[in-house]
Amino acid sequence: MQAEVLRRINAREWKPGDFIPNESELSVEFGCARATVNRALRGLAESGLLDRRRKAGTRVALNPVRKATLDIPVIRYEIEGKGQSYRHSVLSLERMVPPSGIRARMQTQTGVKLLHLVTLHLADGKPYVFGDRWINPDAVPGIEKADLSAQSANEWLVANIPFEGGDFSFSAMTAGKREAEILACKEGEGLFVIERSTWNKSHVITSVRLTFAPGYRMHTQI
Amino acid sequence: MQAEVLRRINAREWKPGDFIPNESELSVEFGCARATVNRALRGLAESGLLDRRRKAGTRVALNPVRKATLDIPVIRYEIEGKGQSYRHSVLSLERMVPPSGIRARMQTQTGVKLLHLVTLHLADGKPYVFGDRWINPDAVPGIEKADLSAQSANEWLVANIPFEGGDFSFSAMTAGKREAEILACKEGEGLFVIERSTWNKSHVITSVRLTFAPGYRMHTQI
Repeated sequence: MQAEVLRRINAREWKPGDFIPNESELSVEFGCARATVNRALRGLAESGLLDRRRKAGTRVALNPVRKATLDIPVIRYEIEGKGQSYRHSVLSLERMVPPSGIRARMQTQTGVKLLHLVTLHLADGKPYVFGDRWINPDAVPGIEKADLSAQSANEWLVANIPFEGGDFSFSAMTAGKREAEILACKEGEGLFVIERSTWNKSHVITSVRLTFAPGYRMHTQI
Repeated sequence: MQAEVLRRINAREWKPGDFIPNESELSVEFGCARATVNRALRGLAESGLLDRRRKAGTRVALNPVRKATLDIPVIRYEIEGKGQSYRHSVLSLERMVPPSGIRARMQTQTGVKLLHLVTLHLADGKPYVFGDRWINPDAVPGIEKADLSAQSANEWLVANIPFEGGDFSFSAMTAGKREAEILACKEGEGLFVIERSTWNKSHVITSVRLTFAPGYRMHTQI
């Protein structure tokens, strides 16, 4: 069944951008279980050949080169890779009960204290990005003993704590008073923001919001 | 030689984050040509096992899961995938000599006219993103006859013009008068921007700057 779907795509019987029949129609046509159809289509979607949207249905993908790969470097390497000197500074570090939005993102119980850490990273002495980070100490053995002013939490976590998956979002914000002070920019400037959470089998390990100084660009090629 | 480097990484003789010896040191140690070393390291870097930075040297990569994949959808599919209705509107379309920055990006000769197109994409009738796009008509046969008010240039190009590679950058900007008018937002709001150029063997096909309405988030998982 998967082979036949693939053949139709390659023969352009189903053209790029076309909707294909839905799962129940295909299971009737091929005389096989709907679970089989689902598995076949899922495999083709994972290879990028089909485009499945929950509400809009399944289409033949428009272009095989539609997935860009994004490099997520340790901030120090990113800065050093540009030939600039790296320095970081811990602006605050405390154990506290997080606000409810963070608690939901970290998937912890009400009242549980987490590590809250704000770190400014500097390139050639100038503010480059600051990270507002929450860490679940239960998921990170050794974090209480780590010297996070010697090695940034970003680097320490990557080197010491394996993770299984992560969630990234990219957006823009308008600098308020706090961002302007930390990044030495004007209030009202547009800033690039990356939010990411990483987890292992049992916990959300950490969730960080990185706010970049004006002018930052993230770059990739396909 | 590549097998031995791989063995050392796996045996953690060279640990994640460690700098490894440079190419000339390795060529002496292994008694092989520097080109061989270079090829071996390049292969390992492409698989994500080594982290090569021109100025900073080569390190063992910190984490095998460092590359995130980014889905680059056609804007209509992105909007319809959220269950919203899609509409687009061509704000301007003319053939003109581009300013020098665009000419450089499009790699065309001085004085050559390109197609300049500004398109607003709307979700449920509200401004979602606008694209300021340049197209090289020499690279895009049929573009002059295409009805770009019926099908957006974004979709028309993806469906009709194969490309070999692309360049993406992501950043933030501060809304000026023009952005505020087009996107119906306030001047001074932080906006998310994607710039992308795509090319084939002989030409840069198109270069577009997408400026999103406030609140837009791009999302991915690893």
